[in-house]
Amino acid sequence: MHVFEIWAPRAHNVSVKVGDTSYCMKEADGGWWRTQISDAGPGTDYSFVIDDGDPVPDPRSAYQPLGVNGPSRVIDHSAFRWTDKQWQARPLASALIYELHIGTFTPEGTFRSAIAKLDHLVDLGVTHVEIMPVAEFSGEWGWGYDGVDLFAPHHEYGSPDDLKALVNACHENGLAVLLDVVYNHLGPAGNYLSRFGPYFTGAYQTPWGEAVNLDHRGSHEVRRFFVDNALMWMRDYHFDGLRLDAVHAFVDNSAIHFLELLSTEVDILSAHLGRHLVLIAESDLNDPRIVMSREAGGYGIDAHWDDEFHHALHSLVTGETNGYYEDYGKIEHLAQALENAYVYAGTYSAHRGRMHGRSIDGLWGRHFVVFAQNHDQIGNRARGERLCHLTSLGRQKIAAAAVLTSPFVPMLFQGEEFCASSPFQYFSNHNDPELARSVSEGRKNEFKAFGWDPSDVPDPQDPQTFRNSKLKWEEAGSGEHAELLAWYKKLIALRRRSSALTDDRLERVQVTYDEEGQWLTMRRGDIEVVYNFHSDAQAIPVSVKSPDVLCSEGGWKLRPHQIELPPDSVAILTAMGVSKARTAAAG
Amino acid sequence: MHVFEIWAPRAHNVSVKVGDTSYCMKEADGGWWRTQISDAGPGTDYSFVIDDGDPVPDPRSAYQPLGVNGPSRVIDHSAFRWTDKQWQARPLASALIYELHIGTFTPEGTFRSAIAKLDHLVDLGVTHVEIMPVAEFSGEWGWGYDGVDLFAPHHEYGSPDDLKALVNACHENGLAVLLDVVYNHLGPAGNYLSRFGPYFTGAYQTPWGEAVNLDHRGSHEVRRFFVDNALMWMRDYHFDGLRLDAVHAFVDNSAIHFLELLSTEVDILSAHLGRHLVLIAESDLNDPRIVMSREAGGYGIDAHWDDEFHHALHSLVTGETNGYYEDYGKIEHLAQALENAYVYAGTYSAHRGRMHGRSIDGLWGRHFVVFAQNHDQIGNRARGERLCHLTSLGRQKIAAAAVLTSPFVPMLFQGEEFCASSPFQYFSNHNDPELARSVSEGRKNEFKAFGWDPSDVPDPQDPQTFRNSKLKWEEAGSGEHAELLAWYKKLIALRRRSSALTDDRLERVQVTYDEEGQWLTMRRGDIEVVYNFHSDAQAIPVSVKSPDVLCSEGGWKLRPHQIELPPDSVAILTAMGVSKARTAAAG
Repeated sequence: MHVFEIWAPRAHNVSVKVGDTSYCMKEADGGWWRTQISDAGPGTDYSFVIDDGDPVPDPRSAYQPLGVNGPSRVIDHSAFRWTDKQWQARPLASALIYELHIGTFTPEGTFRSAIAKLDHLVDLGVTHVEIMPVAEFSGEWGWGYDGVDLFAPHHEYGSPDDLKALVNACHENGLAVLLDVVYNHLGPAGNYLSRFGPYFTGAYQTPWGEAVNLDHRGSHEVRRFFVDNALMWMRDYHFDGLRLDAVHAFVDNSAIHFLELLSTEVDILSAHLGRHLVLIAESDLNDPRIVMSREAGGYGIDAHWDDEFHHALHSLVTGETNGYYEDYGKIEHLAQALENAYVYAGTYSAHRGRMHGRSIDGLWGRHFVVFAQNHDQIGNRARGERLCHLTSLGRQKIAAAAVLTSPFVPMLFQGEEFCASSPFQYFSNHNDPELARSVSEGRKNEFKAFGWDPSDVPDPQDPQTFRNSKLKWEEAGSGEHAELLAWYKKLIALRRRSSALTDDRLERVQVTYDEEGQWLTMRRGDIEVVYNFHSDAQAIPVSVKSPDVLCSEGGWKLRPHQIELPPDSVAILTAMGVSKARTAAAG
Repeated sequence: MHVFEIWAPRAHNVSVKVGDTSYCMKEADGGWWRTQISDAGPGTDYSFVIDDGDPVPDPRSAYQPLGVNGPSRVIDHSAFRWTDKQWQARPLASALIYELHIGTFTPEGTFRSAIAKLDHLVDLGVTHVEIMPVAEFSGEWGWGYDGVDLFAPHHEYGSPDDLKALVNACHENGLAVLLDVVYNHLGPAGNYLSRFGPYFTGAYQTPWGEAVNLDHRGSHEVRRFFVDNALMWMRDYHFDGLRLDAVHAFVDNSAIHFLELLSTEVDILSAHLGRHLVLIAESDLNDPRIVMSREAGGYGIDAHWDDEFHHALHSLVTGETNGYYEDYGKIEHLAQALENAYVYAGTYSAHRGRMHGRSIDGLWGRHFVVFAQNHDQIGNRARGERLCHLTSLGRQKIAAAAVLTSPFVPMLFQGEEFCASSPFQYFSNHNDPELARSVSEGRKNEFKAFGWDPSDVPDPQDPQTFRNSKLKWEEAGSGEHAELLAWYKKLIALRRRSSALTDDRLERVQVTYDEEGQWLTMRRGDIEVVYNFHSDAQAIPVSVKSPDVLCSEGGWKLRPHQIELPPDSVAILTAMGVSKARTAAAG
């Protein structure tokens, strides 16, 4: 027996269709409709029919084996045999996150095939895997940000059980798993939500059109829909937390902000499960309220992505100052980001043409996730270039050091650690010819406006664009790839064993820099990180005495109160006594 | 010499026109244009010409002697001779606010004529006069919520000096003065702001169209425009504070909410002037963040209007349960409002079709302004009926008692205290025939949708609608008018002398009620207020022993632990010893 239920406050009649049989549903309180069918157990395929229209999938479908327009399948989440009973994730404050995309992480591009690559992540020192969105989206492949069946894992990646097997395997390997979820919009194909209820509101516009309805009529059920989705992934799939896409696109004027409601509900589930579940928001608002505790008037989200750290670092190591990089490019900006997480904290941003952000007084490093690369910063470029396509190995090492010695929560993007040659390009696989054409042309026109020749912009709908973006694991073992990988491992190992590097009190970060001299030093306890961005070797003043030195290049020289560094290099200095004692104890 | 300056970031050229002469302005930083003209002192009329278009008024015009489409006039705000040097307003926690509309408060409808009526307010016990918006709007008369020259007092009410004379006279009479300002939209006629810059954004829609741009490109100057306006009224006109219209229509996703910016700037001016300036917001969000301190994550506004107190009270005394009153009408709702300010505090509102509000833990009575009537609650009715047109004198007395014994900041609407026979109807005087027709028809159609015969809905553009709304002061001295006035005075005097009634700690408010018995009691320290909403006399349990009794009707009987009250009456019981001691001390 299975109870079918659906919120459809505008419907006059609703039925559920199983095979060729339609079962009339009964209207209950608050716009809900229900019916129970005795022989519709797990594995049953069904759809809903509203006001005698076409059958459409269940907005809360647990599985869409035939894609976004096919029937929904009843799933029994209690059937999977978990072996992670005692699992506890490492706290975010000492985490290293690794962002990956199921379709391109392995040649096969499935949940099951990803399991075979977990050894690499463990060996690297990753603590948290972050999986790009897996909710069912239109077509066979895609980034996943146009999901429409938010409760169903994408059928091309595998079944619900396959996803559970991946999470279970991660836990067995000591890896926590975060899932990227998209609550700010739904994809353009297969989105039937508006047939059921007021999931969107014309009162606010977002880059994707009408905003999700978080504060207008019916919003209580819309908020519930997304909250239930979040809880489902953590309860039924054992995810250790979620990454919330673009929360700056939420517009919610109500007294309890959706993010506060969400963090409250997740805390309740945490208490129930006996392990702390985390929420990480993508936000470009520079608004500390998102990560402040609810008691302090915040929304109680654990951390948010710090795009400005990326922008400051990227523009320094690539020299790019076009587009949004116009607000960055100076050593000063990286200094700001290292000390205060934000570059703009209530100050005027020329690119935005307005005041931006506010100061983060009272927050910790653990409240901010930083990265030198991520899916967006790579993939939103016309050709999806990684840092390794834009700058030297030396500067990639600098970028890695900046992230991995920062007081924040570091995150890597799949393949970054071995300067994967594969780009991460924008790819999609929409079947609707009109939509497919619009996505292809839209992409070309978008970059044409920035001066690109359209023929140089890969077509998102070309299957080769997807295939180009798959990692080539075989290259990791040799040449520059292996050299960079070794550097990442050294940095990660240093971060892991240094209490100075895991101490995330931001008031302890002391940055000194010289804009003209193109150098910067960051002191954190007994560690000093020294950056030479100059194309010449130069001596840079340091404060750690007689240190151990880990340098990205050979040829550095230690002098009293100074270190001479080769061009484009970074050195991490550790007060000798401390370092030796630690190493001895660890050995 | 006068410096003309204007923000016009989209303009290619800007000039200022004085008489027949145009002076080319020079582009300065950030989209500003400036020029100085040696012989353009106070009294000079001028307009701006952008990109060779029609001359338009200065968005920051200090005076529009010929209306919204005429030239702007240079005003020297330092010339007025103030006599209020030592003035300090009473704190909001012990205030009694009186809302008035300049055009209908006196027969003449001017700033100067209002001065003659201040004696009545002082005699009544008012502490704060709240003046409905005076910013220049289209036509000769109107409510004022469609102002377009926000820095200019409406020319039909008098000159800038006349308004200063009114404020000065209030201060001389011991009355503080608040001004109603509208920052959520501008009126439909004479609004030239969009010619100058991005004052509005299509990203958000409000009931008046595009929202004011508080968080998009250019918002730094738009926010500055409104903040400067607020500061101008308090600095140059000596207003003691502002009432901010409909702040729920602000949509601001930026890290520093406009209201927080505004309260910060007003606090700085307060410190500079040496007197506390207050901000009162109209808000229907039931969101305590608006009035929480900035240190606690709030916006630092002093108080907000508590519409739900009104709705709970109004629906009880009138029996109306249509429209938004469907969410109210029970004794329970008034009990909620008396104890918690909000009726809906994170609970489902059927009228709104969503969850609404949150609890006000930690706030005080002084954070909420309550009223039995105001310009909106009267004027937004089809025929602008006051309570006295809807219910008995006895029930009006109950409503008055509820407001004046509440733990909140009470507010009266002009004429309420003597049950003025004049309605307060929606009136306007747009000259543009198309706009005039649209306003007239719009009003009729709005109420037609609620079942009204259009011919029963007064035409806003009919001058008689305006004249009907003027107070008839002569009626205050006799009959029921005088009886009600005496009751108001008794209640106000009691509130003034009772420390229990001015103690605004909400945790001290104890409400007991009986839905079926239709009674409610509210204990506050040594005071107990007893309401009999029943059409029969009945005995109601009380806890104050051997009290003094102030009852709205004769015929009450005091018994052990009970008071028998006549139908539709209210009694205020004061513990005898306390009351006598107080009266003796006061006498």
